Amino acid sequence: MSERMLAVGEAPRTAGEVRGVVPPARAGVHDERAGGAAGDSGADGQEAAVLLDRTREAVEPELRRAVDSLPGTMRRVVTYHFGWEHADGRPAAGRSGKAIRPGLVLAAARALGGSPTAVVKAAAAVELVHNFTLLHDDVIDRDSTRRHRPTAWTVFGDADAILAGDALQALALRVLADDQHPAAGAAAARLAACVVELCEGQHVDTALEERPCDQVTLDECLGVAEAKTGALLGCACAVGALYAGAGQDEVEAMDAFGRQAGLAFQLIDDVIGIWGDPARTGKPVGADLLAGKKSLPVVAALTSDTAAGAELAELYPGLGPADVGRAADAIDRAGGRDWAQAQAAERMSQAVGQLSRAVPDPDLAGGLLALAEFVTRRSS
Amino acid sequence: MSERMLAVGEAPRTAGEVRGVVPPARAGVHDERAGGAAGDSGADGQEAAVLLDRTREAVEPELRRAVDSLPGTMRRVVTYHFGWEHADGRPAAGRSGKAIRPGLVLAAARALGGSPTAVVKAAAAVELVHNFTLLHDDVIDRDSTRRHRPTAWTVFGDADAILAGDALQALALRVLADDQHPAAGAAAARLAACVVELCEGQHVDTALEERPCDQVTLDECLGVAEAKTGALLGCACAVGALYAGAGQDEVEAMDAFGRQAGLAFQLIDDVIGIWGDPARTGKPVGADLLAGKKSLPVVAALTSDTAAGAELAELYPGLGPADVGRAADAIDRAGGRDWAQAQAAERMSQAVGQLSRAVPDPDLAGGLLALAEFVTRRSS
Repeated sequence: MSERMLAVGEAPRTAGEVRGVVPPARAGVHDERAGGAAGDSGADGQEAAVLLDRTREAVEPELRRAVDSLPGTMRRVVTYHFGWEHADGRPAAGRSGKAIRPGLVLAAARALGGSPTAVVKAAAAVELVHNFTLLHDDVIDRDSTRRHRPTAWTVFGDADAILAGDALQALALRVLADDQHPAAGAAAARLAACVVELCEGQHVDTALEERPCDQVTLDECLGVAEAKTGALLGCACAVGALYAGAGQDEVEAMDAFGRQAGLAFQLIDDVIGIWGDPARTGKPVGADLLAGKKSLPVVAALTSDTAAGAELAELYPGLGPADVGRAADAIDRAGGRDWAQAQAAERMSQAVGQLSRAVPDPDLAGGLLALAEFVTRRSS
Repeated sequence: MSERMLAVGEAPRTAGEVRGVVPPARAGVHDERAGGAAGDSGADGQEAAVLLDRTREAVEPELRRAVDSLPGTMRRVVTYHFGWEHADGRPAAGRSGKAIRPGLVLAAARALGGSPTAVVKAAAAVELVHNFTLLHDDVIDRDSTRRHRPTAWTVFGDADAILAGDALQALALRVLADDQHPAAGAAAARLAACVVELCEGQHVDTALEERPCDQVTLDECLGVAEAKTGALLGCACAVGALYAGAGQDEVEAMDAFGRQAGLAFQLIDDVIGIWGDPARTGKPVGADLLAGKKSLPVVAALTSDTAAGAELAELYPGLGPADVGRAADAIDRAGGRDWAQAQAAERMSQAVGQLSRAVPDPDLAGGLLALAEFVTRRSS
């Protein structure tokens, strides 16, 4: 997965920095901010930041307890991956991640009248699944950096990274199996089905990356983004809804909300991968382009049937560092950037529509909306 | 995992062929054969063969249904791995395996008064977990042959073999999560904990194989055999017991029965890996020795403090084909073969003790005992 991490304590990225992706959402669903525990500061991402801080406070002890139950080496690889320890076992100050997915679980439960404390184990399970897929995807993609550190496979080898990922998937399901909440079984079934979708998504992604550029369609790439990113965000929301005792329709609407928000996130993440500030993304300038990645703006440009698209096709893949600026410009002129941003806005609009189906009261929906806006605004 | 497969329809291996491992078991636990559905033919493995045939009949439809629910490529890799299809998708006549683990689930449930039909999903889940670990272990160990066919990673590549394994683990837990039986949650927790043990076992195994021979102890190797082989056989029996509504003591005794039988199996499997008939094992003569594998008889010989052990240490690892006979002979003279067989008998005796704790009535215990004897006799 191509998630980029921002350094801890960094100033929030504003919507304007990612050129004009301000979903026409908040006004419709959330005319009046309710204030409440999270404070009245949604517009600049502060509400989401507070929600995520509280999520980490609530969920991290459960995560650590689960990981501590792993035997020797499995525990060591996982604590390294989470940034809790250095490779030699010394404690590290790193954070395990921004906790977007557990944040969605808690916020979804709360929005539907559930107890956030009752859903902590489920939120931890979703985060464990997310991290299991990161461990394996890094092995498969040969990615060497994650959260500004060397990936687990580069430190411990492929075998242990694969095994630690396997153990983490099992741990996720064990945390749910140990949970006495009546929704735990349905959540486990949903999470397991989501893992299958994530696996197929990663397979298709790998297969697309191996195909020549002119044999890849935009629909295929959107399908990958939905399977690899949307599916688990949707599952997180659905799990929260299940724990709140929501009905089937609400659960499905919550899943669709998370899926569409996840797609919007991936579109923006891909835009930032090309035009973002390396100091914020943690990746060198043009890394995605140099790697020949078939990101969404690239494929939009290549399939645009424009002169700029044809110019890009001459260059891509196989760019040298000197070509990065020219390629980014060609993608822009071919409409790849505008398309991605318009798509992201459209997906956010759909997400908001689904959210208002599941949670008609805008005050209750506020936390989820803040999180969705946060992820699509911050490339996180 | 180092399981060797016998060709379908092959004559059962008799105890005498594997020099003297006839556990002093049956007489104690099962003085009088009950006959019953499975027939009165335990002594030559026929009772077990019948039980396994019936298990396959009952469980394979559930397995196929689960696998058919996988999306495109995940399904294709898994159906190939199970031997149901060729790599190009044409149907294949292969069997998915001997179904030892689901056989144990069904037999354990039956022995404790449970309904074998109620436990079919759980038996399928255990078999799915087993196959997920095979897919990943083959990638990690770079094993190129499984069930007389090229392993999945050699056909589909590492990435798809890893992803298909991931999907299979998820599928196992989903099958249990979808099961309405009241024991399904406890079974899922137990199976997930077992996966963690399998992962750590595979890690330690890989680590031991990389260490110099003189830095490996027999206890470490026995620990690996318990984690990699004993744990899932034990879990299969425990899951059957849980579905029968057994109490905690019975469940643990059933787990211990399966574990000890699994250890006995691995000991005999290692003996056969050195002295077995290649036509039966499906591996070339001396394959384990040529690969420098730290199998139990080898490590017993190397740590025997005998002249023959020292002779083996001169040769091992790094044998050429011409040295295989001499190495096997040195292991034998150093007592490695006798030790492994005595250990196997001792483990079977412990297994039988645990079984009689869980199931005091020898008539009811008969099926489980027949399966345990079958696996330790047939290297399967």
